[in-house]
Amino acid sequence: MKKVDVVKKILYANEKYALENVLFFAEHKKLCLNMISSPGSGKTTILARTISDLKERIKIGVIEGDIQTDIDAERISRTKAPVVQINTDGACHLSAAQVSAAIRELPVKELDLVVIENVGNLVCPSDFDLGENAKIVVLSVAEGDDKPIKYPGIFAKSKAMLINKIDLLEGGLVDFDIERAKTDARRLNKDMEIFTVSAKTGEGMNDWYAWLTESFKNV
Amino acid sequence: MKKVDVVKKILYANEKYALENVLFFAEHKKLCLNMISSPGSGKTTILARTISDLKERIKIGVIEGDIQTDIDAERISRTKAPVVQINTDGACHLSAAQVSAAIRELPVKELDLVVIENVGNLVCPSDFDLGENAKIVVLSVAEGDDKPIKYPGIFAKSKAMLINKIDLLEGGLVDFDIERAKTDARRLNKDMEIFTVSAKTGEGMNDWYAWLTESFKNV
Repeated sequence: MKKVDVVKKILYANEKYALENVLFFAEHKKLCLNMISSPGSGKTTILARTISDLKERIKIGVIEGDIQTDIDAERISRTKAPVVQINTDGACHLSAAQVSAAIRELPVKELDLVVIENVGNLVCPSDFDLGENAKIVVLSVAEGDDKPIKYPGIFAKSKAMLINKIDLLEGGLVDFDIERAKTDARRLNKDMEIFTVSAKTGEGMNDWYAWLTESFKNV
Repeated sequence: MKKVDVVKKILYANEKYALENVLFFAEHKKLCLNMISSPGSGKTTILARTISDLKERIKIGVIEGDIQTDIDAERISRTKAPVVQINTDGACHLSAAQVSAAIRELPVKELDLVVIENVGNLVCPSDFDLGENAKIVVLSVAEGDDKPIKYPGIFAKSKAMLINKIDLLEGGLVDFDIERAKTDARRLNKDMEIFTVSAKTGEGMNDWYAWLTESFKNV
């Protein structure tokens, strides 16, 4: 089928750039993470808090992917971390070529870690490797505990999951069975690291920081 | 550019089926709505409650779009409404061809309204007309009030927006400026109907029902 061939070609072109990015990060001995989630699950808040709390231990640079606007890049720049904005102008995911251009604008030598915040979309970004060492999926409890089953692609491919906004569980305003989400995610991905956090209150963030810091030993 | 041509061709093929669906609904004098949102904003809950609350006034049939699983179709079928499941097997949006096949499986003559619940994705579904009379966008307050600015495509194209989960605003657990979201959405789309609702508690749903019922006069 023609459509499938075209999709394969687009993916192939992406893989070429993704491989170049892998080599770039390996050569510079830097870790790169690709954060993926639905819109509004809290990627930017997690990232801003992580940068601030770890600033004495890890130097983080950020690539912000958005369809339009630089709202998130502005929020990140308030932490003083270097940030490069990519506007996809309607496209539903970042491409490795866009990331390849963006990493040339970051002061990579001064950094320990580059975090790519992908376009808010739980589907498309999972099909496009950007040359990252690992994908990190974020799921807000407000989205419901059935999301690993309903959108399995990204949960199968992510090294770690952050279940965010757990402060909303207090008072019973939100129904979300953490054990169900964990079990379903690990059925897709048995070695997945899972952190239950509130980037707003800080609850649970230390476990995420410990894992992140530990991950550098493997670079 | 070759990629653009390919996208145009795919859209063109979609438009052919979309037009057929438009003619189908016009011929049968039925209204069709295409509900679009991020994963977990509450489309299924809104739909299930609407079907139950309006069952004496409007007969609603549902086309459920999901990447995998029939969890949502099962929830809808508990309301006794007729429902057809489309699994996109990884694809990030429904196509008009899929809807064309699905409407042949619904008892359309017995219905007043067909609601299509699209795949949870705030980006891709907005580019693919399904032959609907109107798109309806759902935004949960947990997703943040900046979404109309950050994902303008779907807000510009939707006839109505439901701001859902307003019960989460009580107690100040969630920061969401309803006026900001409304103003930004109406800047993209000055005639947009906006309903602030909680499909969980029922708050605000009557305004949505009134608009939905009124809409039949134009069919």
